[in-house]
Amino acid sequence: MPGRIAPRVPPRRAERERLGAFGGLAALSLDALSSVAYGPEAIVLVLVAAGTSAVRLTLPVAGAIAVLLAVLVVSYRQVIAVHPNGGGSYAVAKSELGGPVSLLAAASLVVDYVLTVAVSLSAGAAAVVSAFPGLSGHMLTLALGGLAVLTAVNLWGIAESARVLMLPMAAFVTVILAVIVTGLARGHPAAAVGGAPAVHAAEAVGFLLVLKAFSAGCSALTGVEAIANAVPAFQEPRARRAQRTEMMLGALLGTMLLGLALLITRDHVAPRAGVTVLAQLTAGAFGTGPLYYAANLVTTLALCLAANTSFGGLPVLLSLLAKDGRLPHLFALRSRRPVYRFGIVALAVCAAVLLLAVDAETSRLIPLYAIGVFIGFTVSQTGLVRHWRTRRPPRWAVHAVLNGTGALLTATAAVVFLVTKFLEGAWVVAVIIPLLMLLFSRIQGYYHAVERELAAGEIVPPPRATAGLVIVPVGGIDRLTAQALRAALTLGPEVVAIAVHDDPERGAAFRDRWNRWGPGVRLETLSSPDHTVVHPIVGYVKERRDRQVAVLVPEVEPRRWRFRLLQDPRPVILATLLRAETDAIVCTYPYRLTSR
Amino acid sequence: MPGRIAPRVPPRRAERERLGAFGGLAALSLDALSSVAYGPEAIVLVLVAAGTSAVRLTLPVAGAIAVLLAVLVVSYRQVIAVHPNGGGSYAVAKSELGGPVSLLAAASLVVDYVLTVAVSLSAGAAAVVSAFPGLSGHMLTLALGGLAVLTAVNLWGIAESARVLMLPMAAFVTVILAVIVTGLARGHPAAAVGGAPAVHAAEAVGFLLVLKAFSAGCSALTGVEAIANAVPAFQEPRARRAQRTEMMLGALLGTMLLGLALLITRDHVAPRAGVTVLAQLTAGAFGTGPLYYAANLVTTLALCLAANTSFGGLPVLLSLLAKDGRLPHLFALRSRRPVYRFGIVALAVCAAVLLLAVDAETSRLIPLYAIGVFIGFTVSQTGLVRHWRTRRPPRWAVHAVLNGTGALLTATAAVVFLVTKFLEGAWVVAVIIPLLMLLFSRIQGYYHAVERELAAGEIVPPPRATAGLVIVPVGGIDRLTAQALRAALTLGPEVVAIAVHDDPERGAAFRDRWNRWGPGVRLETLSSPDHTVVHPIVGYVKERRDRQVAVLVPEVEPRRWRFRLLQDPRPVILATLLRAETDAIVCTYPYRLTSR
Repeated sequence: MPGRIAPRVPPRRAERERLGAFGGLAALSLDALSSVAYGPEAIVLVLVAAGTSAVRLTLPVAGAIAVLLAVLVVSYRQVIAVHPNGGGSYAVAKSELGGPVSLLAAASLVVDYVLTVAVSLSAGAAAVVSAFPGLSGHMLTLALGGLAVLTAVNLWGIAESARVLMLPMAAFVTVILAVIVTGLARGHPAAAVGGAPAVHAAEAVGFLLVLKAFSAGCSALTGVEAIANAVPAFQEPRARRAQRTEMMLGALLGTMLLGLALLITRDHVAPRAGVTVLAQLTAGAFGTGPLYYAANLVTTLALCLAANTSFGGLPVLLSLLAKDGRLPHLFALRSRRPVYRFGIVALAVCAAVLLLAVDAETSRLIPLYAIGVFIGFTVSQTGLVRHWRTRRPPRWAVHAVLNGTGALLTATAAVVFLVTKFLEGAWVVAVIIPLLMLLFSRIQGYYHAVERELAAGEIVPPPRATAGLVIVPVGGIDRLTAQALRAALTLGPEVVAIAVHDDPERGAAFRDRWNRWGPGVRLETLSSPDHTVVHPIVGYVKERRDRQVAVLVPEVEPRRWRFRLLQDPRPVILATLLRAETDAIVCTYPYRLTSR
Repeated sequence: MPGRIAPRVPPRRAERERLGAFGGLAALSLDALSSVAYGPEAIVLVLVAAGTSAVRLTLPVAGAIAVLLAVLVVSYRQVIAVHPNGGGSYAVAKSELGGPVSLLAAASLVVDYVLTVAVSLSAGAAAVVSAFPGLSGHMLTLALGGLAVLTAVNLWGIAESARVLMLPMAAFVTVILAVIVTGLARGHPAAAVGGAPAVHAAEAVGFLLVLKAFSAGCSALTGVEAIANAVPAFQEPRARRAQRTEMMLGALLGTMLLGLALLITRDHVAPRAGVTVLAQLTAGAFGTGPLYYAANLVTTLALCLAANTSFGGLPVLLSLLAKDGRLPHLFALRSRRPVYRFGIVALAVCAAVLLLAVDAETSRLIPLYAIGVFIGFTVSQTGLVRHWRTRRPPRWAVHAVLNGTGALLTATAAVVFLVTKFLEGAWVVAVIIPLLMLLFSRIQGYYHAVERELAAGEIVPPPRATAGLVIVPVGGIDRLTAQALRAALTLGPEVVAIAVHDDPERGAAFRDRWNRWGPGVRLETLSSPDHTVVHPIVGYVKERRDRQVAVLVPEVEPRRWRFRLLQDPRPVILATLLRAETDAIVCTYPYRLTSR
């Protein structure tokens, strides 16, 4: 996915903890590599609309995608050289292309991250169901369950390392390559799985159909930019190693894509109910023995880990947006465990809504996927073109033409896909991306206005103010009152205690007790005919506009949480009303119970 | 319902606004009178278990209930004489019988109020469905809709007056009496409504069956105590007028009950699907023309207004319990509109749960109803006995015997009903009442412990403390900081500003700017390698244990509510952490934005 921010690879990590070429492949390419689990299937699902024979076009379509992949890989080698500090398409757009484009990049990235989670989890659920047909009615439950686990794990905060990812990545690549090699060696499929082929030839083979198949298949390209975003995580020489890793990724991904497409074309694979295309190819290669189950589970694991990369990436992106004042500051808030809770929850909620909306059917998410991806590619490449034009290194024109061609290609693709797939779901993206951009810019407007207001004019240093008046509402003569008065006396020499009584007689009696106690603090009794305690105090504070007033609100704090429900609510209400309606400094000082 | 607190009748109302005998009947007896809409039906539903012929026992059972009613009315005349200040069975029990009994009275009252709402609304829904059979599948929706309307109206706070209630009460009484007179005059029913009689004779007529019918029919007695609780709302001579009203209520209720029972017995009315027994009698008297619809709607209105009396009563009872420290103080909290919001919401939630649990079937709620009612009656009468024994006025023994007999009768009834109806739902009440009592006493235990702790030992008046240290966290040099420093200087002469920077260089640069600004306040810069701002400040405050520290947390407050989401969350987190982890006085002083 273009512009994705490298997850969980702190920039100041010690050198020996940094990534080598193979480690980088493990840590950063699972998202890209795992997309071969649904990319080729997406092509087949489009082509089959023109009958089983149209499936033979899978190979040429995959070939075209492989060519685009090659262009992207070469382009990202240049991105690595130019931006050795990494940063996603949002960062590139912000520095090279300015505000509005960076908003576009940010919005498409947000959409993409959410879609990665939804697509990976629904594809993972499909892989599980392929192995265990008994679960076929529970796709949505499986996907939501996986989402819940990922969310919990990420909220808890895991210390993830590249080494952990190496094994599942290697297992997944091995499985796919083994399927291709064994399948091609066999001559014809070893076993068939799933129901009857679900084919209803409704369209003729035509340019539009091939274009749609191409766009659907491009979902296999998501994630190829992750390496370019994480250059600082590599060992020295960083750029060189990252470039080598990018090439390895391109070669692996291209090989798997073309190999699977070749197998699909040769075996005339058509979509079947209850199994994925990849599962059909696996059964064709390995039969339906233990290897079949193992291969499907490895695929599921890889897809779940791919979904997990979004949990690493989106919250970081949201925090960057929040720091730039384009999202609420809440999203920049990190708990002590270095985890952006709000971002994780936002991602989980959005992905769950998506999964529910499409009933966890991968094929219904694919049309939404391509547009965000291609916007990201276009923004990165356009940024490079701008870079070459302003810096003008040797042979800059060649580079600029290369990246410009890439940008034009991907931009055209984005527009074409938006038009051809508009009614199939792309309209959602076409609505959400502008809305997100509007939201970002409105929020930015708010923060700018606040900044201007706070900094407006000359900021005069504060005068040596005289001591203010400290008011303490009291309800009786007890330890709570004594403690509150003691605290109030440290805030200023002039302290007034206020007692509210609904009956003047009781007020007088309280005054007598107060004077006998002799705290050395003046008492004022207010009468409250309508039994409220809070409003007379607020009224009293409002009348003292001539000087700065501080109100110290005494509060009893129980030791155990469950007793909070039993607390007197009036101190909280008083503090809230004072903050809303008066210019008083509102202070709280809890009396901590020891017994409860 | 025994011990119910008079709703919405402020004790200090001007004399001319007070109730006359007829106004009192309107304001206070709708709950009791409307219960004839479901009481006789409850008898029939029990008797019919022994076949249609057993329905002839309705009249004798109603006669027994009328006798009990007479005892209760005479008894409540005495309650009025003895407690002219009103107060429900909870108040009587508290003053005459002490703690545990008052808890029992309170718990049974709470249960009763909730049941009144649920029973009245489900009976009202049944009356609607009787008139409009097309709605027969939507009883629960109707009842919950009515509940929602009542809740909203009561949360909003209505100024209800006795005059408003007079018309529906008069209409309801007129309808019932007209049904009885016309029905008896006709000789045989004018029309039949509803499906085939739903009779499945499963039991023999026996003592137990009659007892069950009696207990079910006693649901018609709920509400006869409301007048005794509201004596202060009457015009002078209060007690005399209230007693006269009580007699009128008894006469009316007894007449309606016996009249309906006579009609049921004569016409061999059996329960039919889709219509209430009252609707059958109405059709028998008026036919199924417009009068039939009007009568059913008047019944519905009366039942809804009866449910509304609980919304007046329960929140007041809960507030009394809260003031006695037996429920969270929250329930004593009144908004500016004199409405106990928490109590209203609690009542609505409980009634909704009940309606959902029994699917709005009145007959399934009746077994739960009688026990609470009879506990209340028993408590009131026992209180009177205690009163006669301690005060010993002339002829006290006669009074004591009378009330003692009443108490014995109702206590026996409560126990018998609990046993005979245990499996039909009474177990719920048998579980909930003790649980409520336990809850009340545990809460009381908490408040007593707090009171003891706050008052323990000698409370030493506070010393003339020296001024404390005032700490102001600052994020930059702007109006927010200037305002916060100005406020802080009124809290003490020694103010320290704290800035947190993740990078020592930036910290030094900030210090330079600070010194150039020259606010006359010492600046301390803390470094935070892990990027959190909050924890270094909390740590700094913790270290200053030697003196009283106040922390003034500057906060920006937007003018519009929707911008709150965009506020910096760190001040709130800082204040919360400081309150939880340090002994600092935590002060807030918002900077109010004018632009947003």
